[in-house]
Amino acid sequence: MIYLDHAAATPVSERVFRAMKPYFTDEFFNPSAAYLPAKKIAHDYEAAKAEIAHGIGAKASDLVITAGATEANNLAFTCLDADKKEAARANNKTESSVLYLTTEHDSIRRVAELHGGEAIRVLPNGLIDLNDLKKKITDETELISIALVNNELGTIQPLAEVATIIREIKIDRMKRGVNRQLLLHSDASQALNLLDINVARLGVDLLTINAAKIYGPKGVGALYVSHDAKLKPLAVGGGQENGLRSGTENVPGVVGFAKAVAESKEHLNGNRKKYAKWRKLFLENLKDYELINKKHCLDNFIVLCFDGIDAERLVFLLEEKEVYVATGAACAASKGVRSHVLTAIGLADSQIAGSLRLTLGETNSEEQILATAKIINEVVQEERARVNG
Amino acid sequence: MIYLDHAAATPVSERVFRAMKPYFTDEFFNPSAAYLPAKKIAHDYEAAKAEIAHGIGAKASDLVITAGATEANNLAFTCLDADKKEAARANNKTESSVLYLTTEHDSIRRVAELHGGEAIRVLPNGLIDLNDLKKKITDETELISIALVNNELGTIQPLAEVATIIREIKIDRMKRGVNRQLLLHSDASQALNLLDINVARLGVDLLTINAAKIYGPKGVGALYVSHDAKLKPLAVGGGQENGLRSGTENVPGVVGFAKAVAESKEHLNGNRKKYAKWRKLFLENLKDYELINKKHCLDNFIVLCFDGIDAERLVFLLEEKEVYVATGAACAASKGVRSHVLTAIGLADSQIAGSLRLTLGETNSEEQILATAKIINEVVQEERARVNG
Repeated sequence: MIYLDHAAATPVSERVFRAMKPYFTDEFFNPSAAYLPAKKIAHDYEAAKAEIAHGIGAKASDLVITAGATEANNLAFTCLDADKKEAARANNKTESSVLYLTTEHDSIRRVAELHGGEAIRVLPNGLIDLNDLKKKITDETELISIALVNNELGTIQPLAEVATIIREIKIDRMKRGVNRQLLLHSDASQALNLLDINVARLGVDLLTINAAKIYGPKGVGALYVSHDAKLKPLAVGGGQENGLRSGTENVPGVVGFAKAVAESKEHLNGNRKKYAKWRKLFLENLKDYELINKKHCLDNFIVLCFDGIDAERLVFLLEEKEVYVATGAACAASKGVRSHVLTAIGLADSQIAGSLRLTLGETNSEEQILATAKIINEVVQEERARVNG
Repeated sequence: MIYLDHAAATPVSERVFRAMKPYFTDEFFNPSAAYLPAKKIAHDYEAAKAEIAHGIGAKASDLVITAGATEANNLAFTCLDADKKEAARANNKTESSVLYLTTEHDSIRRVAELHGGEAIRVLPNGLIDLNDLKKKITDETELISIALVNNELGTIQPLAEVATIIREIKIDRMKRGVNRQLLLHSDASQALNLLDINVARLGVDLLTINAAKIYGPKGVGALYVSHDAKLKPLAVGGGQENGLRSGTENVPGVVGFAKAVAESKEHLNGNRKKYAKWRKLFLENLKDYELINKKHCLDNFIVLCFDGIDAERLVFLLEEKEVYVATGAACAASKGVRSHVLTAIGLADSQIAGSLRLTLGETNSEEQILATAKIINEVVQEERARVNG
């Protein structure tokens, strides 16, 4: 098996699994209980949160643990005034309080739409159109959501530049006595593994991170929340996570997340070099392709187009050779929806239909990369012969 | 160690852990991906949901998987008309659309309060006051939430009787042309392990279940949703769980939940007999106590009061002997709040301050039960001697 869909899911690493294991069986106590072994669990849980937070230059108390990126993204949007959401709905939006990048994941697009959000354009290279952003920020704007790394192209957005623009607007607002909040949220689900993330350096107020994309367990994520952002819980109850996310803590999940963050940090530079080398090697050995994500992207993302060939057919043919690749984000793929990301960067329908996403990861080896290039070459050649009759 | 707080947390059983393990490491694929190994995961996930659903007499498509009982409880309340929630807040409630039992867990109490909910009284034996229920149901009532088993006393509520009352009211409403919904929700988190639950027999429209209380993993629960109940998602995104709960599926968690449900069902009768025997044995060997939950409760719940002795001090003294018990629900205990449940059944403050909750479970043995009675007798005697100078 050659698995090249690490942006969709990663296996739990051996070290992560070993770290989690005792918290399922022996160290199972409820962190809220009063006796010593439970207090030890509460301590371990906080220590794990501190390690996750440390990975993005934050403190444990800045994090709200969630069941994944989708919940964290939705939680981030509770910073918006609920009355405004109603108004946006009722008025079929006048001026939007939310801006989001048009290439965002569905969990941002859907929640932004609920709030009457407006989309910011991207350039053909996948980067945010900063002029469009500037044009669309009004005195009503409260929240701007831009993923650090796009989940289909791997495009790394210049968040620090966005933060600079926001800072200038905030100064201007202050001068003019406009005291509406203006927060920057970023979904960094795809980024934590290969970018050295620091919330202060990025200039974000809210940051979504996710264990399942970095060799941690599924069903665990977190939202970093700066002191400027005031959120409301999506669900209420026992008051865990500072009242922002009630429910008994998923201790094994969070311990695993912490180990996954620590491992990511430890191997960050090595992995980047490795993936950059593999990407180059792969493309050198691949024939007759068009590379979609040429620049500004994570080294483990390779998005390709094969002229005149249907990518879904390629996925199927490669599957027969036990090579597993994607045509787009897994959740969009399962619904048979044309990629909004590839549309946004201006690809023609035929290009979109022919696009494959390969995301390299820890299950791969150099031999696999070379083998994949060879297999794709063969499959594409056969398919072209078949199509051309 | 003698652990007697199984209502707060249970360890993941060996069989559950073994069932989950491959889905962390080898079978890690995203269920939404297009290739065969991922489709196998999607199939396993659905099969696990079917097994969970089967455990309560339902179908996989009736379940929404959540991150636990709190989220499921909150999701249940989305059946309410959002406009009415706003109106309830604005008017400081006129007639409430929500009724809930006064002894409910915080995750119900808090969300019910947000909707201007009204509490139904319990009798001194902990059972619902059906006359109070009847009196409080109006033509405005849309949702009634009553836990099948109380988490502090283990009291089993007569849900089928409640369902009968609701059915009569619905018939009456129909005759009078009142077409407002009237749904019955029950949090069965504590019950799935020792009661043979069937949604049709209980007559519920919405049912919360939870893996973490039945030797399954933390961070996984589910809400059963009948066809009559129309819910709205707490968080939006990729559209998983029929659009009611977006986010990549927690496959290992759900597989573990399914195994925990299957194991619970398999050992239901044996465990009930075992706990009933242990409860009897324990009480026969215990001295100078008052039993709070005399009747109508799960056999593994023992709530005791020792006159003139502070329960928190007992928890501490027992902890020194490595016997772990609770004073109330773990999440309430950590906040130092007096139990609203014990208050509701009419206990005096001194009784509440002296109340211990012991919940028996699979980590126990008959020897442990006998040892615990002996240790509590000694500790209580010493403490009485100390208090009386």
